[in-house]
Amino acid sequence: MLTNIRKISVEWGDCDPAGIVFYPRYFEWFNACTAALFAAAGISSHALHDTWGLAGIPMVDTRAKFFIPATFEEELTVESVLLEFRRSSFDIRHRMLKNGKLAVECFETRVWTVRDPSNPSRLQSLAVPAEVIARFAGA
Amino acid sequence: MLTNIRKISVEWGDCDPAGIVFYPRYFEWFNACTAALFAAAGISSHALHDTWGLAGIPMVDTRAKFFIPATFEEELTVESVLLEFRRSSFDIRHRMLKNGKLAVECFETRVWTVRDPSNPSRLQSLAVPAEVIARFAGA
Amino acid sequence: MLTNIRKISVEWGDCDPAGIVFYPRYFEWFNACTAALFAAAGISSHALHDTWGLAGIPMVDTRAKFFIPATFEEELTVESVLLEFRRSSFDIRHRMLKNGKLAVECFETRVWTVRDPSNPSRLQSLAVPAEVIARFAGA
Amino acid sequence: MLTNIRKISVEWGDCDPAGIVFYPRYFEWFNACTAALFAAAGISSHALHDTWGLAGIPMVDTRAKFFIPATFEEELTVESVLLEFRRSSFDIRHRMLKNGKLAVECFETRVWTVRDPSNPSRLQSLAVPAEVIARFAGA
Repeated sequence: MLTNIRKISVEWGDCDPAGIVFYPRYFEWFNACTAALFAAAGISSHALHDTWGLAGIPMVDTRAKFFIPATFEEELTVESVLLEFRRSSFDIRHRMLKNGKLAVECFETRVWTVRDPSNPSRLQSLAVPAEVIARFAGA
Repeated sequence: MLTNIRKISVEWGDCDPAGIVFYPRYFEWFNACTAALFAAAGISSHALHDTWGLAGIPMVDTRAKFFIPATFEEELTVESVLLEFRRSSFDIRHRMLKNGKLAVECFETRVWTVRDPSNPSRLQSLAVPAEVIARFAGA
Repeated sequence: MLTNIRKISVEWGDCDPAGIVFYPRYFEWFNACTAALFAAAGISSHALHDTWGLAGIPMVDTRAKFFIPATFEEELTVESVLLEFRRSSFDIRHRMLKNGKLAVECFETRVWTVRDPSNPSRLQSLAVPAEVIARFAGA
Repeated sequence: MLTNIRKISVEWGDCDPAGIVFYPRYFEWFNACTAALFAAAGISSHALHDTWGLAGIPMVDTRAKFFIPATFEEELTVESVLLEFRRSSFDIRHRMLKNGKLAVECFETRVWTVRDPSNPSRLQSLAVPAEVIARFAGA
């Protein structure tokens, strides 16, 4: 499966009074890493909305384990991979490394989501197109 | 002019490694205070978009002066007032108090903004409706 | 076990271009809810550091499931409970309700953490004091 | 005076329901740009605290003007320059460009700040060391 690597520079403002990264920041980074993984598969976030007609790929389940804390002026590397497609949902794993060691591991389940044509304020799932799946498998 | 008061509880995650509020958080709070000021005038954010057809009231100029730092578990009070309407823009002032003393003062200039009907991705300014101005003046 | 209830008002700036809460924000709220749960047990965040000598109660494992999206100007209610204490770690559950229905459920495992006296930049776990456990059990 | 250039990639989560950058994010970026400017002068954020003994360089006055909005998957370039040192404060300007055009301009006044030796919870200003000024002037 397609894997994407992304570097993260930890900033002062990402850290809390204990001097370590405030953990919700990791989820902001992982969300950007998922967008980067799709971009690496040739599907930009704008294409996701404009070409594929999605409302988005909202999170339905995410879990993160934190092994090593990080602080400002450290550089982290995230390896992101799409683990599995199901009918309308899919799983992603992010492994964040600090100095080559696993610092944070995160799993995500997201859903291929469109707006209900008869009620645009409602979101509904749709089967992931075969062409999208092929872009990840072929890489 | 209509004034609105809002209380802010500072959280651990709002603070940086120096143990004080990371200053971009103040702008998040001031943005919420502006929304609350409009709501106090009877114009919710949803009404702003659905009833008045706005794309939003984006910021074009903001300035904040920081007099007293704050830390987690402190409570701050913000007094927000709409200072002046011009044709399509308007000025807001927020005075944030800590224990009755001025901690932060912020000025905002925002624009009454709609989407260009011929190109929805473009934003354009529009004259603020007299009814909106009346709601702030009458209070 | 002690339960604490907290209300969350969703702001415009908490939402993403799809118009729903950007999910890392939920973790910011849950972190504040955990602090509020400790405060309800008589242990403020300042006491945690000043009285109990902690560096903090960092997250080691968290999982959230998202059932119903939320948007700006909605009010959410979070019920937080400390599920179990182990030697130096403990589990918390947050159930976030929207209009009485479960919108997000989150589990946290955190660690009672001090600074290594011989190397203050290193964090180490410590047994949770019996008095702390009693404050949650007795409520 | 020393100038530093930094690139910013706008992420989905930086944008609000209008689809444009939620303006407090710009201040997060500008804060990181100031840290990068100091790093370019040979003064990392860790050195600022460990070598120079600072509590930080907190903001006392900042103003930003927003000319062109930005959205996710756009790349912005920030030119940061230290405009002037006074006794214990100094001014920084950030010019953020999008496709070569000025999108946001920001001015900052910050203070060289240490902890009061007799009361570490109190912050106090100190004269900026000549060596620090020289590092910016000489570049």
